[in-house]
Amino acid sequence: MLKIPDHQVAGHEAGAGKLGPLVDDSGRFYKPLQSGKRGAEEAAFYESFSSNTKVPEHIRKYFPTYYGTKVMKASTGVEHPHIVLQDLASTRVNPSIMDIKIGSRTWGPEASDAYIAKCLERDRESTSVTLGFRLSGLQVFINDESGFYKPNRDFIHKIGPDDVRVNLRKFVSSNPSEKLDTVPDCSLSSSVYGGTNGILAQLLELKAWFEDQTIYHFNACSVLFMFEKGLVLNGASSNAEVKLIDFAHVTEGKGVIDHNFLGGLCSLIKFISDILEMTGHTATNGQLEV
Amino acid sequence: MLKIPDHQVAGHEAGAGKLGPLVDDSGRFYKPLQSGKRGAEEAAFYESFSSNTKVPEHIRKYFPTYYGTKVMKASTGVEHPHIVLQDLASTRVNPSIMDIKIGSRTWGPEASDAYIAKCLERDRESTSVTLGFRLSGLQVFINDESGFYKPNRDFIHKIGPDDVRVNLRKFVSSNPSEKLDTVPDCSLSSSVYGGTNGILAQLLELKAWFEDQTIYHFNACSVLFMFEKGLVLNGASSNAEVKLIDFAHVTEGKGVIDHNFLGGLCSLIKFISDILEMTGHTATNGQLEV
Repeated sequence: MLKIPDHQVAGHEAGAGKLGPLVDDSGRFYKPLQSGKRGAEEAAFYESFSSNTKVPEHIRKYFPTYYGTKVMKASTGVEHPHIVLQDLASTRVNPSIMDIKIGSRTWGPEASDAYIAKCLERDRESTSVTLGFRLSGLQVFINDESGFYKPNRDFIHKIGPDDVRVNLRKFVSSNPSEKLDTVPDCSLSSSVYGGTNGILAQLLELKAWFEDQTIYHFNACSVLFMFEKGLVLNGASSNAEVKLIDFAHVTEGKGVIDHNFLGGLCSLIKFISDILEMTGHTATNGQLEV
Repeated sequence: MLKIPDHQVAGHEAGAGKLGPLVDDSGRFYKPLQSGKRGAEEAAFYESFSSNTKVPEHIRKYFPTYYGTKVMKASTGVEHPHIVLQDLASTRVNPSIMDIKIGSRTWGPEASDAYIAKCLERDRESTSVTLGFRLSGLQVFINDESGFYKPNRDFIHKIGPDDVRVNLRKFVSSNPSEKLDTVPDCSLSSSVYGGTNGILAQLLELKAWFEDQTIYHFNACSVLFMFEKGLVLNGASSNAEVKLIDFAHVTEGKGVIDHNFLGGLCSLIKFISDILEMTGHTATNGQLEV
């Protein structure tokens, strides 16, 4: 019943002798607890978050549902503790997915000097420092024949600011697999990024919460964009969704907003607004005028 | 005619043989060009900014007026190039002033490894990393008899997150010189931080610009808060002003918002909103409800 997820775009992957997430056919996602305190802290975050009455209901929908932890046979064949979550892709057929790690810094102030040095190097090499976020994974559905545009991880880890912009355009284009020197047509941008239920509207709802919430600091956390190209082409809603994932480095907010996450989120919002503006929508100060 | 400014709270100070800013009695402020490319870059910023038609008029008021550069006899007695600016304190009698360096990182992505290491150390030691800003200087007018509460720089450089909050309260209190274990009364908060012309309203106007502007990245730049306690006690407007200063590390925005400055600014806005909320104003998502 357990299998390797079809639509993973970032993070550890399960394989022969390799520890990675599994899914079942009831819509649950089993994420192996990471080693050291990282795994324990991610589980602790889910425990805290799922019972925290200060988190508004309209914000909970941006987080995977948490079903506790479970010791079970892992992808390696041996028993291992897992965090049991909602499988975000379970109800989707051919999801286009983008994983974006938010923040110009991916370390928390309490991390060790060695860990900070390691993160800082990757933050400077990637677009984290310049853009306030970096692309961690991507798959864009083309059609049944060609499948997905899914650049490999080495390519993604090396891309610069201009490539990030191009890939945010490719994500909502009918020609995503074209060469980088072709301008992506962004023909799906209004259905996916725009509109009252689109990705920009969801990011703005998250932004309003981040301007105020001082409970958690989401260090090294990602936002996931998902939609169904098939639905858009059939004239239906794109079913665009924004989710937050990866909470192994969340720390207490201690009465201070998560200015690092918020800054990166605002930068991403500006990129998305630019694409909508370019394709004929008007956006002012990050506020979509519909 | 030239003299050492009365109300400087941070930065290099002029003195016997020491290079520092001078003011004249016509309301001009002469800032010695810093050594290396730092000084040249600050002058270049003022040149660019003062002629940039993309900067909206309502934003220009947050910057000192720029009158060019001038080689003149410096505070050391020898000729030195200076940046000539508006003296922000020239029309004030007993200004309360706070200098806050914005951003959880004070270095730009193009800085050298050695400079980044030096800045990172100070960012981690101070509240920059935790709060997204740090206090650089402070003077609070008490009364004619006692003069100013003006903690020394060593004290200011060592203060932690809780002390920052206390000092933001002291700044708008009638009892600023009391010991730290006394809760500042914040009796001037509504006049200084609140209202349609108060500091919060000005910060929110700047925030809206920073959510959209991609021209400049204001690395290691400060916001200055200024007001006149005497005016408030006489029932007049506090004449509260927010200004941006210190542009030696500004870099080009290259189409990306200044997420580092914006994040820190939002964190500061939340601190100010918290004080207004505590003192009976309501603030939601950083928006002041008046």
